Amino acid sequence: MKKYVAEFFGTFWLVLGGCGSAVLAANFGGEGNPLGLGFLGVALAFGLTVLTMAYAVGHISGGHFNPAVSFGLFAGKRFSGSELLPYIVAQVLGAIVAGGVLFVIASGNGTLDLTGSNPLATNGYAAHSPGGYGLLSALVTEIVMTSVFLVIILGATDRLAPVGFAPVAIGLGLTLIHLISIPVTNTSVNPARSTGVALFCGNPEIMAQLWLFWVAPIIGAVIGGWFYANFLETGVETKPLVSIEPPVKFPN
Amino acid sequence: MKKYVAEFFGTFWLVLGGCGSAVLAANFGGEGNPLGLGFLGVALAFGLTVLTMAYAVGHISGGHFNPAVSFGLFAGKRFSGSELLPYIVAQVLGAIVAGGVLFVIASGNGTLDLTGSNPLATNGYAAHSPGGYGLLSALVTEIVMTSVFLVIILGATDRLAPVGFAPVAIGLGLTLIHLISIPVTNTSVNPARSTGVALFCGNPEIMAQLWLFWVAPIIGAVIGGWFYANFLETGVETKPLVSIEPPVKFPN
Amino acid sequence: MKKYVAEFFGTFWLVLGGCGSAVLAANFGGEGNPLGLGFLGVALAFGLTVLTMAYAVGHISGGHFNPAVSFGLFAGKRFSGSELLPYIVAQVLGAIVAGGVLFVIASGNGTLDLTGSNPLATNGYAAHSPGGYGLLSALVTEIVMTSVFLVIILGATDRLAPVGFAPVAIGLGLTLIHLISIPVTNTSVNPARSTGVALFCGNPEIMAQLWLFWVAPIIGAVIGGWFYANFLETGVETKPLVSIEPPVKFPN
Amino acid sequence: MKKYVAEFFGTFWLVLGGCGSAVLAANFGGEGNPLGLGFLGVALAFGLTVLTMAYAVGHISGGHFNPAVSFGLFAGKRFSGSELLPYIVAQVLGAIVAGGVLFVIASGNGTLDLTGSNPLATNGYAAHSPGGYGLLSALVTEIVMTSVFLVIILGATDRLAPVGFAPVAIGLGLTLIHLISIPVTNTSVNPARSTGVALFCGNPEIMAQLWLFWVAPIIGAVIGGWFYANFLETGVETKPLVSIEPPVKFPN
Repeated sequence: MKKYVAEFFGTFWLVLGGCGSAVLAANFGGEGNPLGLGFLGVALAFGLTVLTMAYAVGHISGGHFNPAVSFGLFAGKRFSGSELLPYIVAQVLGAIVAGGVLFVIASGNGTLDLTGSNPLATNGYAAHSPGGYGLLSALVTEIVMTSVFLVIILGATDRLAPVGFAPVAIGLGLTLIHLISIPVTNTSVNPARSTGVALFCGNPEIMAQLWLFWVAPIIGAVIGGWFYANFLETGVETKPLVSIEPPVKFPN
Repeated sequence: MKKYVAEFFGTFWLVLGGCGSAVLAANFGGEGNPLGLGFLGVALAFGLTVLTMAYAVGHISGGHFNPAVSFGLFAGKRFSGSELLPYIVAQVLGAIVAGGVLFVIASGNGTLDLTGSNPLATNGYAAHSPGGYGLLSALVTEIVMTSVFLVIILGATDRLAPVGFAPVAIGLGLTLIHLISIPVTNTSVNPARSTGVALFCGNPEIMAQLWLFWVAPIIGAVIGGWFYANFLETGVETKPLVSIEPPVKFPN
Repeated sequence: MKKYVAEFFGTFWLVLGGCGSAVLAANFGGEGNPLGLGFLGVALAFGLTVLTMAYAVGHISGGHFNPAVSFGLFAGKRFSGSELLPYIVAQVLGAIVAGGVLFVIASGNGTLDLTGSNPLATNGYAAHSPGGYGLLSALVTEIVMTSVFLVIILGATDRLAPVGFAPVAIGLGLTLIHLISIPVTNTSVNPARSTGVALFCGNPEIMAQLWLFWVAPIIGAVIGGWFYANFLETGVETKPLVSIEPPVKFPN
Repeated sequence: MKKYVAEFFGTFWLVLGGCGSAVLAANFGGEGNPLGLGFLGVALAFGLTVLTMAYAVGHISGGHFNPAVSFGLFAGKRFSGSELLPYIVAQVLGAIVAGGVLFVIASGNGTLDLTGSNPLATNGYAAHSPGGYGLLSALVTEIVMTSVFLVIILGATDRLAPVGFAPVAIGLGLTLIHLISIPVTNTSVNPARSTGVALFCGNPEIMAQLWLFWVAPIIGAVIGGWFYANFLETGVETKPLVSIEPPVKFPN
């Protein structure tokens, strides 16, 4: 049970921290104001949600916080198919609660704007791409980014990789993915993250684009998992990404 | 005794570094000047004060540097209640000395402005929120941010978490919290930090709001500690966050 | 064979991530828009491509992702000359595929501009230096930066250096190199990276400058490798940078 | 002998990287241009010079790269007084060579300006403080920053601190110091860094202020070393910061 709590909580933090920094602080004061975070700060925030939660609860649930990652780890033979559904339910619930908390906080100064390209840091393409990129660019971007994300995850947790550094590599890998792709789709690579904020923005156009942020990240993740397992996996036993309950007992 | 010196010194550095970067460098040259740090640089500075001091003196005192953290670790059963008062006294004294040193340095170019929304990087809500957020947003933000902060601290120092990385996770976790919440309350999550600079700004309105930055972080920290202990703690013996004096003796 | 896949994939990510962030996000919205990454975000992106891939596949191929690094490791007696050619072929192919993917994504909003100083984040000097720096500055910069890069690589993987941290030092070392030298040459220190994007920009002037970004980084890397081996190498056995296939078998 | 080469090379990189990023990239394109690094990028660059070189050559020389650090380690009883002079000579020579290389590179676009407040990233106070801070602020800042820097160095290399993380804590500690104090003195905390660029700027006013950037950092470092040794040192044997030549021999 603890592992579902961990996935719920970690995904809650990913959405609250990543989307929260975007909504509250990315463009603080508008054009000409030098205090806002810009895309760089938002990219750092998303990555740090994963870095912090992977160190905090990664030893409990494996630290997916993302339905695409769970699918990709299944494709890479590191995660049991029977756990897919409960993990994804926990992740989506955590994302939705985060969307709600963010909505409450952001409503507190009377300027929350739910119109525009990407209200509440939602994802989108064409009219809802921050840089006006079309469907093809969005699909290629989300698929490629998620597939590389899975290679980073699978490689950094390989038994031959340095011990303990995986959360740094994976978290900063998510930062890097945002540094590249915020202009294209506002960066999803995570269906739960997209869903959590889309539900609160009340824009049917954005809901109508939500399919892409389930389909493309999951396709990308499965490609990445398959690619790693077949072309890069070294064939030696790997460290378990998900610790089995009950955990190892240490002597007292 | 060394542990109180460590808490004093670490909190001194947290306030001098975090608030110092905000006061001296965040908005350097004003609008249109691209050199200032913005909220991103301030967020990084606050996080790095904790990262550096946790590596430097964390093995002496456990590296709280924050009364709310001490309360939360007590709630999470990692810290003795009998140490709460001396730790908090040391932390508040360190924060006040830092406020004084910052006041001296910042007075050195004749432009120190103690009016305005957040003079000396003080915390506040409503008229003293950088983004004009009201009391509800401030309460929710400070409670939620501090509760997640405690989960990060308790999880990253769990015996199952990778050894040695806790200061990275905790320090960058504080950076992340600032990336989200500077616009709302200028980010406290730390009663000592709020108190240390409020005393020097001479604004009775800001002093009148100080209660929130004691109450909300401590409530959040206790919730976080309780949540971790009851829903995430794996039940195996955890590493001591505070090393007991005298420390382990190594053979020469 | 896996090591060539790893070099192909890592160099693909270096070019897609580093140049992608530059093309898509560095100057988002143009002058006055505070959201773009600036040189700082691009520098971070380049470094994180190496950090992430060194943790993900460094245990497979050694994590060069750069013909100059392969040459420099050969000069520093850490890499076999017989592997130079296949490594470089894999790296250049990965870089070219990345250039193509980036071209497809960047074409998706109808504003891709292949004229100007550095289209598709190409490297150059004089008219194709971001800051208008001439040939001498470009040569000195690329040679010195690559030579220091090799000292960082050789030192951080020395057997006496802390275990596991080399990808942090090397990746953030590449970030640092970009923080210094983007204005001069748009920073190459990597012939594959320069080639991968130059092929897609269709500008004969930029192709005519490509020689410098093969010659200078390789000269610099050989100097760095020779310098480390002769003036800094401690003379004790060093950790193998490239793991020999088949990898060490762990007991099951 | 290798340790003097390491100190020369590391200090060369500190000055070339830190001051280079400031001169070439901090204010790229001037006001309104969003590409420049700002103080945040310069702060990161200075810190990463130390992080990278501490991992690369720290096991050879201890990684001081700074006369004040050598003095402070002597005060903290971690460094032999007989090595002070050769270390400082190597450091200052490395800084001067870096100043020369930077001068050559920066001269390559015809816009190098040696007038103004801080040409070539020199340090200063009053008319040569970036933010116009006077002598008292400069003295307090340089003394306090260097003293905390030494506490970070001594604590992070204490035998009880996590193994291998010291370069992260120390490097990012230097970043933090810059985030706070660039507006005051352009941040020295390092007499060699101040000297290396001052010699090339040709401004007698700046040379006349150079005394402060020898006196204040050394005073601060000695205070920090003394403070750590007397109030924080745990009394157990500490890891040697400087490895004794010949280094430990590993079995082949």
